[in-house]
This record gives sequence, structure tokens and C-alpha cells, in this order.
Amino acid sequence: MSTPKSERTRAAIRDAAMASFRQRGFDATTIRLLADELGMSVGSAYYHFPSKSHLIQELYIQVQADHRAAAAPLLAQETKLAPRLRAFLHTGLDQLEPFGDHASEFALAALAPGSDASPLSPESSTARESVIALLRETVEGSADRLPAEVAQLAPEALYRIYLALTLAWVQDTSPGRARTRRLIDNGTRLLAVALPALKLPPVRRAILPLLADVAELGE
Amino acid sequence: MSTPKSERTRAAIRDAAMASFRQRGFDATTIRLLADELGMSVGSAYYHFPSKSHLIQELYIQVQADHRAAAAPLLAQETKLAPRLRAFLHTGLDQLEPFGDHASEFALAALAPGSDASPLSPESSTARESVIALLRETVEGSADRLPAEVAQLAPEALYRIYLALTLAWVQDTSPGRARTRRLIDNGTRLLAVALPALKLPPVRRAILPLLADVAELGE
Repeated sequence: MSTPKSERTRAAIRDAAMASFRQRGFDATTIRLLADELGMSVGSAYYHFPSKSHLIQELYIQVQADHRAAAAPLLAQETKLAPRLRAFLHTGLDQLEPFGDHASEFALAALAPGSDASPLSPESSTARESVIALLRETVEGSADRLPAEVAQLAPEALYRIYLALTLAWVQDTSPGRARTRRLIDNGTRLLAVALPALKLPPVRRAILPLLADVAELGE
Repeated sequence: MSTPKSERTRAAIRDAAMASFRQRGFDATTIRLLADELGMSVGSAYYHFPSKSHLIQELYIQVQADHRAAAAPLLAQETKLAPRLRAFLHTGLDQLEPFGDHASEFALAALAPGSDASPLSPESSTARESVIALLRETVEGSADRLPAEVAQLAPEALYRIYLALTLAWVQDTSPGRARTRRLIDNGTRLLAVALPALKLPPVRRAILPLLADVAELGE
């Protein structure tokens, strides 16, 4: 049963969890700690969020909404595919910055076998589908028309490439993680140069099965 | 001081560790357990291997030597770059198969921040340099001549791509991890189609900075 009071309680726990994930990281954030902070019983907190996994899903949904909001104005003024994808990727990493000090904890939790915290888990489907939808808008809203089969597979494949990029970002020890940012710039610059080759049938025939493989990674 | 007896003891611990890593995985293998199995004192075992990290380095060196031995006959009979790289990648994953049941443990240990068990750590340099040397032989032994600057960066960049592939393999839940194998086949097929484009100056100019970025990932 969702009442206004229940909704407010749920929102308060969620907001406290988001702040705790940023400040304390994944490992040190516990539902017990959040209940203490909010002056509510642990049982009441567990009623709204039965496990830390449920809070991670809230985090993913929040990060995805912030990502979409940050990308929208850039996508609105850019029609070429490569800079659109560049905007998607940079604004995506921007959302991770506040969690940067604890990035490894989140990555290790996400990579544990069968983890609900994996962005590819069934539990994470709401946030994942939103990110993939944003990628579809990034691709389909471009004036660069991709071959139909490529455009179809691209959002799911690019989502896996984006996840690999976030892992490179987590592991990046360069000041300000600038190397990962440069990787985005140089990778999308190569995409701009390579894009016309997708019109060549031998290239398209070679790239489609690879895109399909990448699109199903982690399924 | 290395005497024949000391060398034999060291080899016995190393062999027991390799068997234990295969059977029990990374987490459950301890130096204490190996000492018990070999009927030696824990102090004696620690004298040869002060930490589990030292045993992981032995594992990496062993896997690298087995990889080289498995790749050599295939590289000897293949002159084109794409199938040479395909042979490198498949024989590399072949060496990981015996550890497959515990693959996630090794991956999580390798990805922990600052871990000696990272294949990119200073402690892992012996095995890493051997794998990169094998990649250099794979590239330079090919009849397909790459532009000099591309050939220079390719082994370090391909090594990072290989590490990303091993992580995809760890996470691959398809029967026999067949999806990762297909990814190798389709990826190297695309490489064969794309290779002539490296002769075009705009393509080469766009790919070089990206290769340089990938080549320094994790440094």
C-alpha cells in the first residue's frame, strides 16, 4: 500500500542512501545505518528496502535520470552521430564522479557472480532499459543514417561498450581520470572517420555479427 | 641462496598451488593449506612464497608459458594477421579453462584497487611482458605489414583488449562460454576486412591516438 506518508518515508531512505553511497561508498552503507540516521526503526527501513540491492537499483535509476537530463541539451543541438555519442559518454561518466572515491567497491559488487547489483542483472532492468533507450535516441536522432540492421543492434552493443568504459574509468589512476575522457574523444573521432565505411557491403557484413555478439554480452 | 633442494621445495609448493588454484580457486587456496598438503612447516612455505600474491605471479608465468607453447604451432603455419590474432586469443582462453569454475574469484582479486594480483601490477611484469612479446611476434610475424607506428603500439593495445576479453569470458554464462569464442571469430573477421583501411592516411591518423590511449590503460 503506497500512501503519501509511506512515499515520503521511502523517499527519505532513498535520499539518505544516495548521500551515503557518495560519502561512505557501497560497503559501508547499511540499511541499519540509514535507519539510525533517519531516526526510524530498522524494521521500518527494511519494509521499504528489503536489501542493499534494492537501494542499488534506486541508485541506478537516479544516475540514469541525471544522465538523461545532462545529455538532453547537448543532444538537442548536435546532429552528427559521433559527437552525439561523445556527449552521451561524457555525461554518463559525469554522473559517476561523485562516487569516484568508492568506485572500485561498486564495480566489485557489480562484477560478483549472480549479483543483483550487476547493471546486467534482471533486477537492474528498469535503469538498464532507460539507458539503452537514451542510446537509441542518441543513434536514431542523428542525421547520420546507419544501415537499418546496424541501427537496430547499436544501442544494446553500445551499452556494453559503455559498461566497459565505466570499468576503465574505475581503474583509471590518471589525474582527474583524464585518460578515460581522452579515450572517449579519440574513440568517437575514429567513429566519425569510419562511419561512411558502413555503407560498404563487405564491411557491413563483417560488422553485423560482431555487433550482435557484443549486444548480447552478459545476457 | 638457491640450492637444488631449495629449488625442489619451491617447485613442489608451486605445483601444489597450481593444482589448488584449479580445484579450490583463489579464495580457498592458502599457503598454510599447501604446507599441510606437502607435510612441511608453514614457515618453510612462507620462506619460498611470502604471500598468496607471489603464488599468483607463478600462476601467471605458468599460464603465459603454456599459452606460448599452444600458440606457437598455429602461428608457425599462418601468415595473415587476423587468423594469427585469432589463434593467440583462442589459445589464451584455452589456458584459463581449467580455472573456469573459479574464474570470478581470480577476476575480483585482480580488479581490487592496488592489487598485486592485477595483470597490470608492477609485480606481474614478468608474465605481462612475455604475453606482450608473444603479441609482438603475432603482429610482426605476419605477412600483412602494418604502418610502423601502428605496429609499434599494437602489442600493448591488443594486450588490454585481450584482458577485456578475458573479463567477458569470466562473465560469460553461455554453455562452454561459446559466446566469447564467437566474439573472437567475428572480431578477427572484421579486422581482416578493416585492415586495408589502415593504409588510408585519415584512418591511420584517427586510429593512432586511440591505440595510444588503449595501450596505456591501467598504467
